[in-house]
Amino acid sequence: MPSETPPGDAFDVGLLSPVTVGRDEVVSDAAILDALVTAEVALARAYGSLGIAPAGAVDAIEESLGWINPLEGCRGHGVSPSALAAAGVDGGNPVIPLVGLLKQRVPADVREWIHRGATSQDILDSALMTVARRAAARVDGNLRELESALRGFAKDARDTVAAARTLTQHAVPTTVGLRAANWLHGIRRAADRVEAASAALPAQLGGAGGTLASFVELTGSPDAARRLAAPFAASLELSVPAAPWHTDRWPVTELGDALVRALDAVGKIAADVATLSRTEIGELAEGSGGGSSAMPQKSNPVASVLIRSAALRAPQLGATLHLAAALAGDERPDGAWHAEWPTLRELLRLALGATAHATALVEGLKVDGDAVARNLALTRGLIVSERLSIVLTPIVGRERVSALIAEASAGGDLAALVRALPEAADLDVAALLDPAQYTGLAGVLTDEAVTERGPETEQPG
Amino acid sequence: MPSETPPGDAFDVGLLSPVTVGRDEVVSDAAILDALVTAEVALARAYGSLGIAPAGAVDAIEESLGWINPLEGCRGHGVSPSALAAAGVDGGNPVIPLVGLLKQRVPADVREWIHRGATSQDILDSALMTVARRAAARVDGNLRELESALRGFAKDARDTVAAARTLTQHAVPTTVGLRAANWLHGIRRAADRVEAASAALPAQLGGAGGTLASFVELTGSPDAARRLAAPFAASLELSVPAAPWHTDRWPVTELGDALVRALDAVGKIAADVATLSRTEIGELAEGSGGGSSAMPQKSNPVASVLIRSAALRAPQLGATLHLAAALAGDERPDGAWHAEWPTLRELLRLALGATAHATALVEGLKVDGDAVARNLALTRGLIVSERLSIVLTPIVGRERVSALIAEASAGGDLAALVRALPEAADLDVAALLDPAQYTGLAGVLTDEAVTERGPETEQPG
Amino acid sequence: MPSETPPGDAFDVGLLSPVTVGRDEVVSDAAILDALVTAEVALARAYGSLGIAPAGAVDAIEESLGWINPLEGCRGHGVSPSALAAAGVDGGNPVIPLVGLLKQRVPADVREWIHRGATSQDILDSALMTVARRAAARVDGNLRELESALRGFAKDARDTVAAARTLTQHAVPTTVGLRAANWLHGIRRAADRVEAASAALPAQLGGAGGTLASFVELTGSPDAARRLAAPFAASLELSVPAAPWHTDRWPVTELGDALVRALDAVGKIAADVATLSRTEIGELAEGSGGGSSAMPQKSNPVASVLIRSAALRAPQLGATLHLAAALAGDERPDGAWHAEWPTLRELLRLALGATAHATALVEGLKVDGDAVARNLALTRGLIVSERLSIVLTPIVGRERVSALIAEASAGGDLAALVRALPEAADLDVAALLDPAQYTGLAGVLTDEAVTERGPETEQPG
Amino acid sequence: MPSETPPGDAFDVGLLSPVTVGRDEVVSDAAILDALVTAEVALARAYGSLGIAPAGAVDAIEESLGWINPLEGCRGHGVSPSALAAAGVDGGNPVIPLVGLLKQRVPADVREWIHRGATSQDILDSALMTVARRAAARVDGNLRELESALRGFAKDARDTVAAARTLTQHAVPTTVGLRAANWLHGIRRAADRVEAASAALPAQLGGAGGTLASFVELTGSPDAARRLAAPFAASLELSVPAAPWHTDRWPVTELGDALVRALDAVGKIAADVATLSRTEIGELAEGSGGGSSAMPQKSNPVASVLIRSAALRAPQLGATLHLAAALAGDERPDGAWHAEWPTLRELLRLALGATAHATALVEGLKVDGDAVARNLALTRGLIVSERLSIVLTPIVGRERVSALIAEASAGGDLAALVRALPEAADLDVAALLDPAQYTGLAGVLTDEAVTERGPETEQPG
Repeated sequence: MPSETPPGDAFDVGLLSPVTVGRDEVVSDAAILDALVTAEVALARAYGSLGIAPAGAVDAIEESLGWINPLEGCRGHGVSPSALAAAGVDGGNPVIPLVGLLKQRVPADVREWIHRGATSQDILDSALMTVARRAAARVDGNLRELESALRGFAKDARDTVAAARTLTQHAVPTTVGLRAANWLHGIRRAADRVEAASAALPAQLGGAGGTLASFVELTGSPDAARRLAAPFAASLELSVPAAPWHTDRWPVTELGDALVRALDAVGKIAADVATLSRTEIGELAEGSGGGSSAMPQKSNPVASVLIRSAALRAPQLGATLHLAAALAGDERPDGAWHAEWPTLRELLRLALGATAHATALVEGLKVDGDAVARNLALTRGLIVSERLSIVLTPIVGRERVSALIAEASAGGDLAALVRALPEAADLDVAALLDPAQYTGLAGVLTDEAVTERGPETEQPG
Repeated sequence: MPSETPPGDAFDVGLLSPVTVGRDEVVSDAAILDALVTAEVALARAYGSLGIAPAGAVDAIEESLGWINPLEGCRGHGVSPSALAAAGVDGGNPVIPLVGLLKQRVPADVREWIHRGATSQDILDSALMTVARRAAARVDGNLRELESALRGFAKDARDTVAAARTLTQHAVPTTVGLRAANWLHGIRRAADRVEAASAALPAQLGGAGGTLASFVELTGSPDAARRLAAPFAASLELSVPAAPWHTDRWPVTELGDALVRALDAVGKIAADVATLSRTEIGELAEGSGGGSSAMPQKSNPVASVLIRSAALRAPQLGATLHLAAALAGDERPDGAWHAEWPTLRELLRLALGATAHATALVEGLKVDGDAVARNLALTRGLIVSERLSIVLTPIVGRERVSALIAEASAGGDLAALVRALPEAADLDVAALLDPAQYTGLAGVLTDEAVTERGPETEQPG
Repeated sequence: MPSETPPGDAFDVGLLSPVTVGRDEVVSDAAILDALVTAEVALARAYGSLGIAPAGAVDAIEESLGWINPLEGCRGHGVSPSALAAAGVDGGNPVIPLVGLLKQRVPADVREWIHRGATSQDILDSALMTVARRAAARVDGNLRELESALRGFAKDARDTVAAARTLTQHAVPTTVGLRAANWLHGIRRAADRVEAASAALPAQLGGAGGTLASFVELTGSPDAARRLAAPFAASLELSVPAAPWHTDRWPVTELGDALVRALDAVGKIAADVATLSRTEIGELAEGSGGGSSAMPQKSNPVASVLIRSAALRAPQLGATLHLAAALAGDERPDGAWHAEWPTLRELLRLALGATAHATALVEGLKVDGDAVARNLALTRGLIVSERLSIVLTPIVGRERVSALIAEASAGGDLAALVRALPEAADLDVAALLDPAQYTGLAGVLTDEAVTERGPETEQPG
Repeated sequence: MPSETPPGDAFDVGLLSPVTVGRDEVVSDAAILDALVTAEVALARAYGSLGIAPAGAVDAIEESLGWINPLEGCRGHGVSPSALAAAGVDGGNPVIPLVGLLKQRVPADVREWIHRGATSQDILDSALMTVARRAAARVDGNLRELESALRGFAKDARDTVAAARTLTQHAVPTTVGLRAANWLHGIRRAADRVEAASAALPAQLGGAGGTLASFVELTGSPDAARRLAAPFAASLELSVPAAPWHTDRWPVTELGDALVRALDAVGKIAADVATLSRTEIGELAEGSGGGSSAMPQKSNPVASVLIRSAALRAPQLGATLHLAAALAGDERPDGAWHAEWPTLRELLRLALGATAHATALVEGLKVDGDAVARNLALTRGLIVSERLSIVLTPIVGRERVSALIAEASAGGDLAALVRALPEAADLDVAALLDPAQYTGLAGVLTDEAVTERGPETEQPG
């Protein structure tokens, strides 16, 4: 066994992935290793809870391998991640050498209770689910904080009238609050998905071929074998699987989809913040913009940039998880399973980082009301063309409305042009052209979004 | 306006996509066009149901545009898909020219109720959701038929003992029935997801910038504008949106994820069938294998091949939908929205075709019991090595068990080797080496899978 | 055999893919079918050219199946695409039924020369390569036109000084011409890749298992069998394959990569045009913007939007081609091959549409010089902060430069602040702060880009 | 600045990515950091080589920062990767804090020559290219070794007749040698692509906005600024860029495509080895199979499994690089650039690992000639049905051939059935049914593949 010290040349500390630096210790290799050890201890505990393993053996194992409790699992077991990684290459996974190492770390007379009846996949899948549950809980926590920040932001900006933009062009008025309310809908639904997917994550216990035959053999009873999964899952704070899911990879893809959804939702916010903080637009500014190595005056929307870098990468990682699910042939596939591990971890990492940055971003986000107003006025009233068209068409006909708008687009004074219409004499032109009076349900929709949540949709019927 | 006849050179009838041929008429351009017209009629009906549009106007529109009912929508409106496609290029979407065409097709005095207050996205999103709901219902139907077929298949094969394979190698015994039960779990969960995603699909009604300002203006009341969405959605058999989702694309990604999941699940079945019908394995055969243009003796697992071709394509299409969601900037993005349309449609198409083929595949699937038994015996008993190891290790120690298995692996007679162990004199060696007596919970798990469904997982606690 | 008329419900005319409408007839199913027939005729011609098939038989086949010449292939053979698509489902590909149909269409005594010795894959791969070559030639043509348009645009805008933007913020001055020169580099290199990939596209001739055994049997000589590929390829205007590539899918992935690269390059242009035509920026405008169904004043950058929609979809299609290559197991794989066909076609379609739109876009692209100048001045001189820092730091030290720039950022008059520095008395402050005097090599780089091309990079040495 | 020791909780040593463990030190964060420092030193050296920076200053910088030579770059500069990673979050990239650290590490009087005129992207892109060049050289080296191993394997197995399989079914005879020759074509072409892409990798030198304005300012001459890139590139063993490529990302996508192609090519080998080492097939075996934690008898094709896990992940990473290229808006984009870094690195890592494993795999690959022969005989002669059909159809007609093959498929003795045909009295039935006499050009094609290489395709003309 090589030394405990990781080789200085081979590890990744995030130099090329600033979005995840400092946010990802729950998915580090050390955390994975702790979870693998925890899964092994959980199995011994399961035998113990059914009265099959002696209490003393379980105690000895727990003590030797640093068991704390179901929430925290094992720590301080003394196995080196890098040595284990190297040892795991020959067999294709780290569990095979880990079993040997753990047996050396427990008293000889309890060794038989280590990995008893299990296959590598039972341990690896269960450990990944444990890590995923912990990481997803943080992601969910980040998203709930973000929800809260967005609620505050949306309330504050409820009545700040701004230009809505479609296909890059000013369209009609909206409010900064409604835009944030829409972000909030996205985040809330994503958080719900992450929460649901996380709550469903099951332990894996199937034995070598998914029949639990080894557990039947070792417990001497089909019934006992069937009952092992519940205490095993309980020690890992995971759901009890309805059946082994060794080649039915829904826990991986459902969590993957939820994480990608979370990254979509923060990506949408970042896309808007990046656009709206452009030098020419300037409606929003990140609380603490990033500097430049060359240009001292710049304040870059760095959080948005980092979040976007994650949102651009996530969907393809999600696709890999689905491919692995579709290719999960036989009773354990020849590559698809192995492709899942680093992919799911990277998705968790990106979600951890991006949601944390998004929360900080929204908490510090500043609205430049002057810029908002200046931009809103940029089309010299034409931002309410739709309204004008609705109001004037019945009075003066479609052709004259088009001509009027064309004239204003070419530089004419819109208010004067409207006032010059004899048929429009009774109109309150100032009110008609006031963007603040053409925001429709923006306020109502914002209020609904920020109040305590109901169902996102109602079913027909 | 060009002629109604599609140009002979430009259409796609599925020559390169055999998996979808004949299964996809609900997502054809003709079906999309019907749905676009239906969405326009649904809007007029919504005004009518609130008493804003005169009943006569709504009737005239319904009649002119071929309205049937909410389930079937509009047919026979006389608009040509190919002409509309050509006309839709300049504005970037087909709704803009469609509005003009529809106004020509209704009596002049009701024209104002066509597209009243709507933006292109209201109509296009709502139409896509309508088409998606119909297609997803068929996908769900296919999956439920497949569930039923799998239930029968699993019951029939409940006790057919077979080799379980991991990383391509024989591992331990399992049953053909348990393998099918695992397929069944995957299909059932996928069907549940498709059903849930489909039921949640909302209509879109936000107006140009998502504020519904035009509807407020045209109805004269925020309250009336707010109430339009419900009857609009009802006419489309869609859910009432909690808020406009113009840039919060969960309906698209959630359905997309469910469809990819369905393709994963049928892809897994196809992967197994393709492998197990290999010439050397021959445990399974598709009911009607495909011929070859060169080799008269062959019977190819064509359904599996076609299903796999779809399962390999789907995840990347799902990724595109997520990217589009993450890049849905502003109040309508500059390309991301447009990228969704053909992608979602292709996913629906693949799901329609692959699930239909999968049902037919399983309904016709034949088990060759002789081949199953022959393969099971291929390792001359070593398929129960795990059991031997469990039973013998406490008696003779790990080293002697390893030596014995190594000797058998090298060609020795396993039963004779076991019987030659003095310590094993009391063992029933024939029973010990009988694969049928080492299938663990295969029967139990199969029975559970095929009986009426409960929850797929239980929560901890 | 069903009628020649495609079923009205099932075809795709592009309603949901405006970017490809009207640009894709060379990859239509009708074009694919023509190419399949052409490949069959090319095989007969190859036998004829080696003196194996009688000239009369080849003539009869050519005549019956509408052979024109190698460039144009076959037309008017009378086979219906939709009927063939339906017939191709059972065997998994359209070649199997096609062979039967073609034999019915030629005189009985020459039937034996149809599909002689070939396997479906020989015909389908060769036909796809033919279609791909034709489509890629158009893509290349579009890109060369685009190169030419960009050359003109870059020359015209060579000296139009504009803000360079990094991470959305004004950074330093550049020129509109240099931006276009960078687009030009991207397009030129992409065109070179498309051209090279297209020129390398080989015919496929391997027989059922890639050994050409059937051809050896039928020609009676290994040498003759070996020589068949050259005339076969010549009739299809394809390269002669070094070896059958039935499971070595480089022709597909290399073309796919080149097409994605082309879409990246036009996508980059579209990204910039979309941004720079934002209402607040307004530096660029598409020649003919798109209208809106709701907002009469808008002029949307529709070409950019459509191009972007294609560029967002292409990379995932390219990924599918690579996956299919990696999964091309055995001597013909069980799904991966079938996944290529519609995917490669869709990529060709997107490239055809997006490059055509990009050429039109650049040809009509308008620069608003006033907006360019106005934006350049937006930071009130700070766009040359980098230069100021370079010039002033040696004179007054880093701290005072930072303070000065901070003061100017907060609203101070930059020129006045600089002039107030005693140490800067000798500086020509107006020149120092003039963005037009801080464009570095913009002009030189533009000139190099627009002059006739050399190698894109030089090797070290 | 935090301590030099990486935080124990956050680093990744490859526990979840066995395919890369021990193969990836050239792309580690430590290697990236060395390359960043090297790029900074290379810039100082470039100034020196033009006579702009004093030789003494360059010497002092080289010495302080551990410069060795262009091939090896800098080592031992004393900067901590993990501290730098943490410091790089605020600005979004590690170059900004690195510049400060390096200035502290060089004598005060030469600090001005650090990062002089450069922007972060100049350093980061150039460093990534340096790392990519080194890693790609190793990948290329691995592939060339693999080529060599395949040449030997193919020669040895040139005449081992085996079943060719299409759509999972036995089709016609081929040879083990030809299969390996096809692998060889794939590897050779992939190696050529990696070599070409690697040779083209350019340094980046554009300054803040791609105009090199800062370099013009600092050198006092456009000509000197233009000449800086050549010595800068030479110190990094990179190509001299024709122009800054800050938003024209061909170096990244072309290398990415070549790496994915390499992974496709080894993935294809792994797919075949995994299939052919199935328990029922057993034609191939990896030299050192992997063990199992539960099943002592198993010998898993672990190298194939690991290679496949990489090949399944790579295409989606390649897609991300293309997306980043298409979204490289402005003069430096708001997220797309950042998405490239970890993605390109992961692709390099996968290629390093998978190609190394593939070489070892082929070097140890064993053919079980008995299994090959046994499988070849499995269809009791029907594997030459195609030949029979070719030979007999002219004699007895298509119907009787079909009937004969059907009878044999149902269990009849093929040789006896053929001998029973009166018209076949003159045929040498044993020869006709001998698979070894129906391998077509397998030997010729193998010989061509293993002899020294010519062009992979010939152009038409």
